[in-house]
Amino acid sequence: MRTGALIPEEAGAMPSVRLSDDGSALVIIDQTLLPNETKHLTLRGREELFEAIRQLRVRGAPAIGIFAAYAIYVLANGYAERDFDAFYAKFSDDKAYLDSSRPTAVNLRRQLDRMDACVRQSADKSVPEIVSSLREEAFVVHREDISMCRAISEYGLELISDGDGILTHCNAGPLATSRYGTGLGALLLGAERGMKLREYCDETRPLLQGARLTTFELMNAGIDTTLICDNMASIVMREGKINAVFIGCDRVAKNGDTANKIGSSGAAILARHYGIPFYVFCPSSTIDPKCETGRDIEIELRDPDEIRSKFYSQPMAPDGVGCYNPAFDVTDAELITAIVTERGICRAPYGESLKRVWSSTHEDTSRA
Amino acid sequence: MRTGALIPEEAGAMPSVRLSDDGSALVIIDQTLLPNETKHLTLRGREELFEAIRQLRVRGAPAIGIFAAYAIYVLANGYAERDFDAFYAKFSDDKAYLDSSRPTAVNLRRQLDRMDACVRQSADKSVPEIVSSLREEAFVVHREDISMCRAISEYGLELISDGDGILTHCNAGPLATSRYGTGLGALLLGAERGMKLREYCDETRPLLQGARLTTFELMNAGIDTTLICDNMASIVMREGKINAVFIGCDRVAKNGDTANKIGSSGAAILARHYGIPFYVFCPSSTIDPKCETGRDIEIELRDPDEIRSKFYSQPMAPDGVGCYNPAFDVTDAELITAIVTERGICRAPYGESLKRVWSSTHEDTSRA
Repeated sequence: MRTGALIPEEAGAMPSVRLSDDGSALVIIDQTLLPNETKHLTLRGREELFEAIRQLRVRGAPAIGIFAAYAIYVLANGYAERDFDAFYAKFSDDKAYLDSSRPTAVNLRRQLDRMDACVRQSADKSVPEIVSSLREEAFVVHREDISMCRAISEYGLELISDGDGILTHCNAGPLATSRYGTGLGALLLGAERGMKLREYCDETRPLLQGARLTTFELMNAGIDTTLICDNMASIVMREGKINAVFIGCDRVAKNGDTANKIGSSGAAILARHYGIPFYVFCPSSTIDPKCETGRDIEIELRDPDEIRSKFYSQPMAPDGVGCYNPAFDVTDAELITAIVTERGICRAPYGESLKRVWSSTHEDTSRA
Repeated sequence: MRTGALIPEEAGAMPSVRLSDDGSALVIIDQTLLPNETKHLTLRGREELFEAIRQLRVRGAPAIGIFAAYAIYVLANGYAERDFDAFYAKFSDDKAYLDSSRPTAVNLRRQLDRMDACVRQSADKSVPEIVSSLREEAFVVHREDISMCRAISEYGLELISDGDGILTHCNAGPLATSRYGTGLGALLLGAERGMKLREYCDETRPLLQGARLTTFELMNAGIDTTLICDNMASIVMREGKINAVFIGCDRVAKNGDTANKIGSSGAAILARHYGIPFYVFCPSSTIDPKCETGRDIEIELRDPDEIRSKFYSQPMAPDGVGCYNPAFDVTDAELITAIVTERGICRAPYGESLKRVWSSTHEDTSRA
């Protein structure tokens, strides 16, 4: 077995998601332990694969998509069934189970659907041949994400100048994707090319992805990085420190409304108030043609203890206090200066610009 | 000695600041330990008095003012000097030292100046008589704060209706003041009168005064309380849960620009975006006639470790990451629906309405 084939070469030195050397398991960096510990987890069972998504050990819409593609391959590779119907029944059950781990990210379902299509297209083949196709398909998913990130990053570079101050929220870097990332990609690529950027990271409560992950990635890349609390975004904008806001996203509706990490809509409203451009970065696969507007996007509500006690040495709120803990919010299209995809920069009216991007992606997928 | 006289009767059962029973020390609730521990500290020395303000064991502009008045009395009471000039030199030195503990809150300096005036007016008296006047003056400061809070709360009640949802940021309750509080006063008084209010508390990073203190006070009062992260203010407004935003403040410029806990300006911008009224509550003593606009207000920058590691069981950001940690921000007057003082509700143009309030306060003080 060619070990090299188990990590696409373009993935860089430390991919956030990859197959194990024997191909029987998924290896991820446990993002809940960063930045204090860089621990790799080897995952095989369906419960532990589900739990890794649910508990945000792997996170970021594109990374979850890549993870899901590898995960369903790893599970299918372990099935004893050699009859197609029995194989497919088990596959469908595992697919539905993984799909239920997080409701908001469209990439999870999309990549699972893609793996499902791969199985159905191979219905006339033997089960080992189908499993082999699944593995190839998962690699394609991963490689596509890498080239997608690079293309997004190149487009993103058109939007900033040397010396700019950029505010980010949450994490849309390599850990959340494959290489470069979406929202951070332009900054990382810019730094590689010698640009001096000043990066401000919202810490991103309650799970602190900005503090724990984005700062980690940017500092590793040698970028001038300043961590702030989410509620300091207004003052840094007011003080003229910020030239643009860069965020990733988890789902884009047909009209350009965008679901991303909780707090993104607030950052967009502040940016509008201060006259600062607000850019959303995502693969075209994040556009959901089944969503007319942001009202159709289901918002995941998470455990109140993420606010009350998680990470703290003791609870930081009285016993029994009610908490409201939505993981995402929706930013209205009218607040977004542009949505940057691997197929170009979309601007208002988004109904048209997103449709063009979506159609071209869809044509390519049909041809593939 | 009448022990009863050492706590103004109107202060309620658990004043956040009071003299010790023998009058030789200050007793406070250590607000850094709430809500997990209700610990009283007895403070005598100038370093520990300074440290209590600096470390936010006592906090909230009015409470700091009351604390400062008692503190300078406690120190003066311990001087061996019996010659006025020697006494006053020591007094002035301690006053300047206490005043340097936190730069933004105007009440700290104002109440120290008031105690200073009390000494200067008594220059022809004996030192024990002066010390006795200082004690009386500190009680007057405390009593005035209590009636001020009640008056603000009554005015605040005019602005809300039964069933309303109110968003607060930081803590402007009894712990930050004397009784009732400023920003929370109307809610506590409303609850006493049987109103059903729904209260949303921003947790208020980095020091979590909303999570630790505001929820504690509201739940003790039986109010329906929901804790959110600061970056969730936008979604709760968008979902129609919020009818008004209530905040306290630390300094008001002559034009109505207002310095309050970091994040207040962001909440004001969101409220404007969603068409929700944004109310600032403060004693008229918070109006600083030496400040023309918000640009004249010095913003305190605090220790980066408040963001990186404080409260956490381990650091939540990589070693050595830069942090920007302003404790306050300035909300532009044009974003403020009204400024509620004990002398009435001020509306735009604030230059005029604040001047009327300030002048009437100043006349009273001159007469007193």
